[in-house]
Amino acid sequence: MLSERLAMVRERMRDAGMDALVLGPGADYQYLAGYDAHASERLTALVVFQDGGEIIFVPRLEAPGAEDSGFPLIVWTEKQQPLDLIAAALQEHDAPTIGVGDHLWSRFLFGLQERLPAARWCTASTVIAPVRCIKSSQEIELLRTAGAKADAVWQQVTELPLEGMTERALCDQISALLVAQGLDGVGFVNVGAGPNGASPHHDSGARPLQRGDMVVIDYGGPLGGYHSDITRTLCIGEAGEEERRVYEIVREAQEIGVRAVRPNVAAGEVDRLTRAHIDAAGLGEWFIHRTGHGLGLELHEPPYIIAESGERLREGMVFSIEPGVYIPGRFGVRIEDIVVVTPGGCERLNNAPRELTVIQ
Amino acid sequence: MLSERLAMVRERMRDAGMDALVLGPGADYQYLAGYDAHASERLTALVVFQDGGEIIFVPRLEAPGAEDSGFPLIVWTEKQQPLDLIAAALQEHDAPTIGVGDHLWSRFLFGLQERLPAARWCTASTVIAPVRCIKSSQEIELLRTAGAKADAVWQQVTELPLEGMTERALCDQISALLVAQGLDGVGFVNVGAGPNGASPHHDSGARPLQRGDMVVIDYGGPLGGYHSDITRTLCIGEAGEEERRVYEIVREAQEIGVRAVRPNVAAGEVDRLTRAHIDAAGLGEWFIHRTGHGLGLELHEPPYIIAESGERLREGMVFSIEPGVYIPGRFGVRIEDIVVVTPGGCERLNNAPRELTVIQ
Repeated sequence: MLSERLAMVRERMRDAGMDALVLGPGADYQYLAGYDAHASERLTALVVFQDGGEIIFVPRLEAPGAEDSGFPLIVWTEKQQPLDLIAAALQEHDAPTIGVGDHLWSRFLFGLQERLPAARWCTASTVIAPVRCIKSSQEIELLRTAGAKADAVWQQVTELPLEGMTERALCDQISALLVAQGLDGVGFVNVGAGPNGASPHHDSGARPLQRGDMVVIDYGGPLGGYHSDITRTLCIGEAGEEERRVYEIVREAQEIGVRAVRPNVAAGEVDRLTRAHIDAAGLGEWFIHRTGHGLGLELHEPPYIIAESGERLREGMVFSIEPGVYIPGRFGVRIEDIVVVTPGGCERLNNAPRELTVIQ
Repeated sequence: MLSERLAMVRERMRDAGMDALVLGPGADYQYLAGYDAHASERLTALVVFQDGGEIIFVPRLEAPGAEDSGFPLIVWTEKQQPLDLIAAALQEHDAPTIGVGDHLWSRFLFGLQERLPAARWCTASTVIAPVRCIKSSQEIELLRTAGAKADAVWQQVTELPLEGMTERALCDQISALLVAQGLDGVGFVNVGAGPNGASPHHDSGARPLQRGDMVVIDYGGPLGGYHSDITRTLCIGEAGEEERRVYEIVREAQEIGVRAVRPNVAAGEVDRLTRAHIDAAGLGEWFIHRTGHGLGLELHEPPYIIAESGERLREGMVFSIEPGVYIPGRFGVRIEDIVVVTPGGCERLNNAPRELTVIQ
C-alpha cells in the first residue's frame, strides 16, 4: 500500500522536476510512512528522493514508533542538529529542487534554506495532494464506518434531555458519545444555540438551550486516522415560521449540492448550484462560507468546493456538502454530509435524518 | 498587559532591525493578541509593525473571536487571498525585514516569500521568546494552580485499583481526573508499564499493569492556556533491588537539578549537574534526553535545560527538571517537577511525593 502511494508520488515528482520531499509530522507524513509522527520542537521528518529511497530522520526518543514504518532511519541524539543531517542527505544533489510539506514549521524551513542556499524550494502538496485526494477502497471503508458512527451519535443526541442543557455540557456529552461509539477520539464538537448559531465557528459556552432555539451541532472524530464530520440543526420546541423557511431552503440547497456531484463536474459548479438556490431565496448574503471541503487524514484537505475552483471531481474524492445560512443576532442553519464520488454520482457517508428535528 | 508585552517585543524588534512580525495561530499569537486563533487552511495572522500598529488578518468565519482582541481587523472573505492582503500591508516598507512565527506553516511562508521577493526573512522567536520566557506574577499563579491540580490528580491515581488495569484504561482515568480537577482539558497522558516504561514517549496501549512493574506516568493539562506537566514513577507491589536503586539515583539527580536552579546559572550547568549524578552511578548511557524544557502557553518552549546551553537562568523562568533512566527491555524511571526561578533559587510548582510509591 505504502509502496504504491510512493510510486504515484514519485511519478508526479519526476513530472514536476522535484528531486526530494521533506515532510514533517502530519497527514502527508502519515500517508506515506504509515504512522503519524509526533510534532514537536524535536524534528521528525520523512525525506523522499525522486530517484529512489526514503529516510526518516527521528529523535532518539521517538525512534521506537518510527521503526514500524520499515523505512531506513537516521536516529539523531539530543547533541545533534537534525537539520544538519537532513541538509547533508539532500546535498547529494547539486542545487536540488525540494518540495516541503505544507505544515512544516517555518522555523525548520528557514533552517533548511540557510543550510542549502542554492536549492529551489516549493510546496510538496502539488505532488501529494492529487494522490491523497483519491481515496482507496480501504480508505473509503474507514470513512464510511466513521460516518456511520457519527450518524449513530446524532440519534443519541436527539434522545438527550436537551432543553436547559448548556452548549458546553452538550459538547461534553457528544464527546463521550463519540468515544463510546469506538472512534479514535474526539476530533471537534461545536454547538451554537439561538443567536450563537449565527457564528459558524462559535466557541460553545454557558448558554442553555432554550425553547425556540435553533441549535447548530457540528462534530466528528477519526477512525484509523480518517475523519468524520457531520452537521445537523435541530429546534428546541416548535420552530418559528422564518426558522422553518430558512431550514427548508438550506435542506434543499444541500440536496441540490449532493445531486450535482459526479465525475468530471467542476468543484466550483457544485458550489455555484448550491449557492444559487440560497441566493434565489434572498438568503445569499448569509451563506458566508464555501460549500464544502475534502476530508480524509485531515479534517480539511483538498478538494475544496469553492466558487473559483475549476478542479474536476474524480471518482474516489471525499468531501463535505454543507451549505448554511447565518442571520446575525438571530439563528443559524447548516446541514452537512460527507460524500464520496462514485462512477454515477456520489454516495453519502452520512445518513442521519435531514428533516428538521423538533425536540419536544 | 498586552500593551506591555507588545512594547517589550517592539524594543527587541528595533534592536534586531525587524520591521514587522507575521504570527499565525499559536502561542506567540495568543501571548500578544490575548486569545488563541484557530489554525487551519484559512489563515489568521497577527502582523505587528515595529514603528507602531498591529493588524489581525482574519477569515470572516473567525472574525467574532478576533473582535475581542481590540486590535484592528482586516476581515477577508472566501473570495479573497489573505496573503495578498498581508503582503500589501507589509509593502509599506521597502524591502522590509520580517520576523515569522516559528510555527507558521511553510505553505504560508512560501506564499509570502513569492509576493515579497525583496524582503528579508527571519524567525520572530528571537524577539518574542526572550519576553515570553520571563513569566509575570499572573502567569506564575496560573502555572502554580495548574501544577497543584496535577498534583491532586496524582494523589487520586495512587488510590485507584491499578493492578490489572491496562495502560490505556489508566490514561482514560487520568484524563477524566484532569478534567474533574477543573483544568481546561487534557494536554496529554502517557503511561508506560514495565518494559514499555523504557521508551520515554511510549504510546500507551493494552498492557495491563502487573505485579512488579515499574510504571512511568506523565500527564498534564492547561489552565487559562498555561500548561502543567508532571511525571511520577510507581511500582505495582514491592520493587526489585535494581529498580529501587535506579529509582533512588533518579530521585537524587532530580533533587540535585532542582537545587542547582537559581538566577545567573547557565541552563547547561543544571543539565550537567543532574546528569553527573546519573553518570556517576554508571547509568548515564540510559539517560537519553535533556534534563528539562520550559513551559507556559506551550508544553515545550524555551528555556531548554540542555548540556550545550549557555543561556543564563533568570527570575520568572519556568521549566521542568525531569531526569530519567530507561533500561531497554526492562523498565524506566522518571521524576519531573515544574519549577519557577526565584531570586534565591526556585519554587517547585509540583509537590506530589517523590519517594517511590508502592501500590499494594
